[in-house]
Amino acid sequence: MLKRFLVPEKDQVLVTEAAARSATQSIFEKMGMSEEDAVIATDVLITSDLRGCESHGVSNMLRNYVAMYQADRMNPRPEVKTLRETPVSATWDADTGLGIQVGPKAMKLAIEKAETTGIGAVAIQNCGHVGMLAYYPLMALQHDMIGICMVSAGGRLQVPVFGSETVFGTHPIAWGAPADKQPPFVFDVATTQVAANKLMLTRRIGSQLEPGWITDLEGNPIMDPVDSPNYGGFYMLPFGGTRENGGHKGYGFATIVDIMSGILSGNGPGFLAGDNKHSQFVMAIKIDLFLDAVDFKSDMDKLLERLSTMKPAAGHERVYYAGLIEHEETIKRKRDGIPYHREVVEWFNTAAGELELNFSLP
Amino acid sequence: MLKRFLVPEKDQVLVTEAAARSATQSIFEKMGMSEEDAVIATDVLITSDLRGCESHGVSNMLRNYVAMYQADRMNPRPEVKTLRETPVSATWDADTGLGIQVGPKAMKLAIEKAETTGIGAVAIQNCGHVGMLAYYPLMALQHDMIGICMVSAGGRLQVPVFGSETVFGTHPIAWGAPADKQPPFVFDVATTQVAANKLMLTRRIGSQLEPGWITDLEGNPIMDPVDSPNYGGFYMLPFGGTRENGGHKGYGFATIVDIMSGILSGNGPGFLAGDNKHSQFVMAIKIDLFLDAVDFKSDMDKLLERLSTMKPAAGHERVYYAGLIEHEETIKRKRDGIPYHREVVEWFNTAAGELELNFSLP
Repeated sequence: MLKRFLVPEKDQVLVTEAAARSATQSIFEKMGMSEEDAVIATDVLITSDLRGCESHGVSNMLRNYVAMYQADRMNPRPEVKTLRETPVSATWDADTGLGIQVGPKAMKLAIEKAETTGIGAVAIQNCGHVGMLAYYPLMALQHDMIGICMVSAGGRLQVPVFGSETVFGTHPIAWGAPADKQPPFVFDVATTQVAANKLMLTRRIGSQLEPGWITDLEGNPIMDPVDSPNYGGFYMLPFGGTRENGGHKGYGFATIVDIMSGILSGNGPGFLAGDNKHSQFVMAIKIDLFLDAVDFKSDMDKLLERLSTMKPAAGHERVYYAGLIEHEETIKRKRDGIPYHREVVEWFNTAAGELELNFSLP
Repeated sequence: MLKRFLVPEKDQVLVTEAAARSATQSIFEKMGMSEEDAVIATDVLITSDLRGCESHGVSNMLRNYVAMYQADRMNPRPEVKTLRETPVSATWDADTGLGIQVGPKAMKLAIEKAETTGIGAVAIQNCGHVGMLAYYPLMALQHDMIGICMVSAGGRLQVPVFGSETVFGTHPIAWGAPADKQPPFVFDVATTQVAANKLMLTRRIGSQLEPGWITDLEGNPIMDPVDSPNYGGFYMLPFGGTRENGGHKGYGFATIVDIMSGILSGNGPGFLAGDNKHSQFVMAIKIDLFLDAVDFKSDMDKLLERLSTMKPAAGHERVYYAGLIEHEETIKRKRDGIPYHREVVEWFNTAAGELELNFSLP
């Protein structure tokens, strides 16, 4: 994550992982989730915070979820329906449950199918926010599998290259593979220039947006550094930005995500599905279908070590690969606590009072 | 394709599809390929030319292939070995055959497996040039399947973000899905800013490179428009370019390709496999695993029509989606002929003389 997204040190309050989990879980249970589901949803959020992916942790998301439950726009006790199933696949209707509640169960099923057949894939329609996508491939690589996840997040944020109207959401993609001694490769990106949650983070933190991250409401790219407008005041460009710089590649991957999660799940294209009806696609591929996992992981070590030990180009300290910083941050935060913004801690404690919950952070 | 890559009108010679196929096939057969394989390899090249993807058609590639056969660096009669096989997968050793000769057979097998199990994937090690990647998903979508292809093309071209040394080739990805009335979505991109073949095309055509497409040999981005250096005189940046502009996304997808084709096939990471030892991954996913193909294709029409009929942003004529121009170009070129550079036609006719073949273009 770019430095602009980090909580300034003066505003940080360190909270232990255990305290953050316990508070979060009690809020989900108060919203009506079963204990089992609350544990699952909490794990997605706290894993994000541990990895330093604060944009998708409790800070931005939990109060949104609470507001949605209080407005009756999300179902805390979804009855997930299986619409179609084969030994390698399933299509689910999530019954307006949160994605972070239903998605991990879908990846669990994909992994079980892959244990038997070698490949498992689940497409989910009609779910809420799916959280940090890296979570799903992280589940797969514990089983010596490659994990993939894509999410169609509505259709009101991202404009196609040369376009003037929105068709996609941030439409993220994640992909992960295990290594032996090196931290695993875990890639997780929005197909927009930046995740929408991160724009909102800059509003709290007071940093600005880069040229070419967003457009005005006629699709014209904003090429000066600006404060982030609120939702409704901007559209987003696909990653790459201009055609010459590869914007058609971001646009193409966004289309793939719309197809693989939106259309394939039966949720429909994002622009028709509506903002509150997300869809998700997860896939697990067992490595030993193709070669022994021990050989795969040894080759992964060679690749990842080559990347992370390379001499950096002038002006840079170090070469990273996807998942490396997040792995290091997790070790640090499990030891020292999660550095939340003091505003977030205040929100937790106010919520505890309002919801009559028995915790106080930090 | 950007206009800079097109053959200038004054240098164009129109050749019919049939004449181009026949000349190409006879050259492959002269190089020692079986008739069956020559038909397959020819179809990959001519399909590229018909789609307007000249960088991967006969112009750039055929003389390279001939040179490799004459230097005994490619095996025209490979004995492809199956290293591992399951109902959903296979791992192949291509025995130094051309990718355009072996790859279509691998996708055919993936499609056959997907007809039975729902998903089929083949990983190929030890092959030569794989050609235009769009070819492979195009095969799958004829069967109401989604098709995916990735290729690890060595390790001596692409530097990681912040890096100073090459680790990847251009490492392309293709993804395709069928529609009903609309031309299909067929996405095919290098994970570098531009395909290496296209840099070479600019040399013949006399156009320049954009800022941020390549780096010097220490990994420093070249930010002025320049004539393309020849192979060995530059490194390439991942798509996106700088970190702020999303270069880490191109870098991440390049890593995925190295893993899915290089490591998963047993070919090893591209930087260890060597430049002449490519690897390929193909996958076919049967749509009716998840929903009826007719519903999927109807939703595809809605999405693709929304994209292609949208009001363009100021300064643009039209909004495209991946595969749309190529579809229109194919119709045109099948009718009018393929506009080859006169130099290419001269090469064909010279080759006919040298190889004692009985054709003369156009």
